[in-house]
Amino acid sequence: MLAEAIKTYQKRVDAVLNEHLNQLDDAAPHLKAAMLHGALLGGKRIRPFLVYSVGDMLGANISALDKAAAAIECVHAYSLIHDDLPAMDNDALRRGQPTVHIAFDEATAILAGDALQTLAFEIITAPCETLTPSQQLAMVSALAKASGYQGMCGGQAIDLSATNHSIDLQRLTELHNKKTGALISCAVELALIAANAPKAQHQLMMQYAQSLGLAFQVQDDILDITASTEELGKPQGSDEQSNKSTFPKLLGLEGAKATAEQLIQDALSALTKLPYNSQLIADFARYIIERRL
Amino acid sequence: MLAEAIKTYQKRVDAVLNEHLNQLDDAAPHLKAAMLHGALLGGKRIRPFLVYSVGDMLGANISALDKAAAAIECVHAYSLIHDDLPAMDNDALRRGQPTVHIAFDEATAILAGDALQTLAFEIITAPCETLTPSQQLAMVSALAKASGYQGMCGGQAIDLSATNHSIDLQRLTELHNKKTGALISCAVELALIAANAPKAQHQLMMQYAQSLGLAFQVQDDILDITASTEELGKPQGSDEQSNKSTFPKLLGLEGAKATAEQLIQDALSALTKLPYNSQLIADFARYIIERRL
Repeated sequence: MLAEAIKTYQKRVDAVLNEHLNQLDDAAPHLKAAMLHGALLGGKRIRPFLVYSVGDMLGANISALDKAAAAIECVHAYSLIHDDLPAMDNDALRRGQPTVHIAFDEATAILAGDALQTLAFEIITAPCETLTPSQQLAMVSALAKASGYQGMCGGQAIDLSATNHSIDLQRLTELHNKKTGALISCAVELALIAANAPKAQHQLMMQYAQSLGLAFQVQDDILDITASTEELGKPQGSDEQSNKSTFPKLLGLEGAKATAEQLIQDALSALTKLPYNSQLIADFARYIIERRL
Repeated sequence: MLAEAIKTYQKRVDAVLNEHLNQLDDAAPHLKAAMLHGALLGGKRIRPFLVYSVGDMLGANISALDKAAAAIECVHAYSLIHDDLPAMDNDALRRGQPTVHIAFDEATAILAGDALQTLAFEIITAPCETLTPSQQLAMVSALAKASGYQGMCGGQAIDLSATNHSIDLQRLTELHNKKTGALISCAVELALIAANAPKAQHQLMMQYAQSLGLAFQVQDDILDITASTEELGKPQGSDEQSNKSTFPKLLGLEGAKATAEQLIQDALSALTKLPYNSQLIADFARYIIERRL
């Protein structure tokens, strides 16, 4: 059931992204190809999954969810392209494939990231029969907040400044709440907006989202130690090599595993208080800390 | 009158930008400082001037124009930061000051550009008493279209691919219509949206904006040959040195001057058909091709 839903939503968001990207004209073919490479390199599509599964649970219209899912994945894709650049994490491989600046060149990778960020906002603001202007505006606002200085970009900046320094658990948590957590929470928020969900339920759903987002990062840190290069699609132990603070480094491997488990318990406990059939997103929470890639 | 208005609006948009940037928390102080450096390095504030002067002419509320002016300048500032990067134009000086990657570092410059783009959309979507959600949404949409693949980013990609090749006048015009023109036209469009201007007037105002945008670039190319390094705030002859196609190269210096003049005549002729006192923006059009920096 979960595995099937993950695959269905993966295919769905890929089709939506393909459509949006392929309808761009060919005035700058190199840039268009780089954007396609960066956005459609595969990947788990965690954020689109959350948009679709939470939105479906809340009864949102699926074409409204398509916009939200594609937009948030554009932001995620742009962030990966820029994070992989030589001046940032300097990664040549992503999901077992050459990163954008390797497959193309640095300038094109910078521009592809820039244009994918813009495309996210274009997708959300395109005319839509199933969303009111206020809903679309709320989506733009949520996505901008989650991805800018207060969210993802700020988190990446803290991450860069923390490399080669050791930081404490509080700062590491803040870093990841911003760098990864903000966009994962935003996926859930976009679904709440699309469904016009009652305000009272926002808080519980955000508790689910925030716990899940942090658990995702803790598990990523764990996998960097315990998974193989083949499983990861990138060199194993790269956090260690780049001298990054990680949850296993601060808590030990067992401590990190216990933290991930506790976070998932927090996420699940929020769901039990909601008047919905939340089986699918509960299973997804477990999957987040049981996955091997 | 024009000089005074330029100064007034420069100060006004700088104050708005300062306010938005200074209210960011200090979680990533290095990134915040780089965003401030990139956004407040001075500059002519051509795009904010157009937002304010056109909006004022059309009777728009000035606090609505503040948002549009600050947002479009954030996009412009982000594009300059990224264009200056070593992988792009590799410029160490901008407006007589070190560019962001020189004053900080490359990774921070990439992130500062990213976060300034996001901030533009945050500024437009923030709650606003003088704009309806539909107006705010239309502004986001216009800004995204003008700055993404179909506009500024696409233009920069064409520019990069045209370096060291010679391109014809049609391609050079397409390049600059996208790279510079799209955002200048967008400034006028944002003012039209803020003022709820009748659709019938959009076309004439866009004729003004598009002619002005291209004339601006033709004059930039002319200044690269005829102005001093001191006047430019960057090395004189840098287009020549980086082997870029320019209007003077394709048309000769006198031909380029005649083209700029013709474009301004087109811009002015659009204004005469409008039922507004357009003296200020007519003077501005003349200034665009008479300026020395």
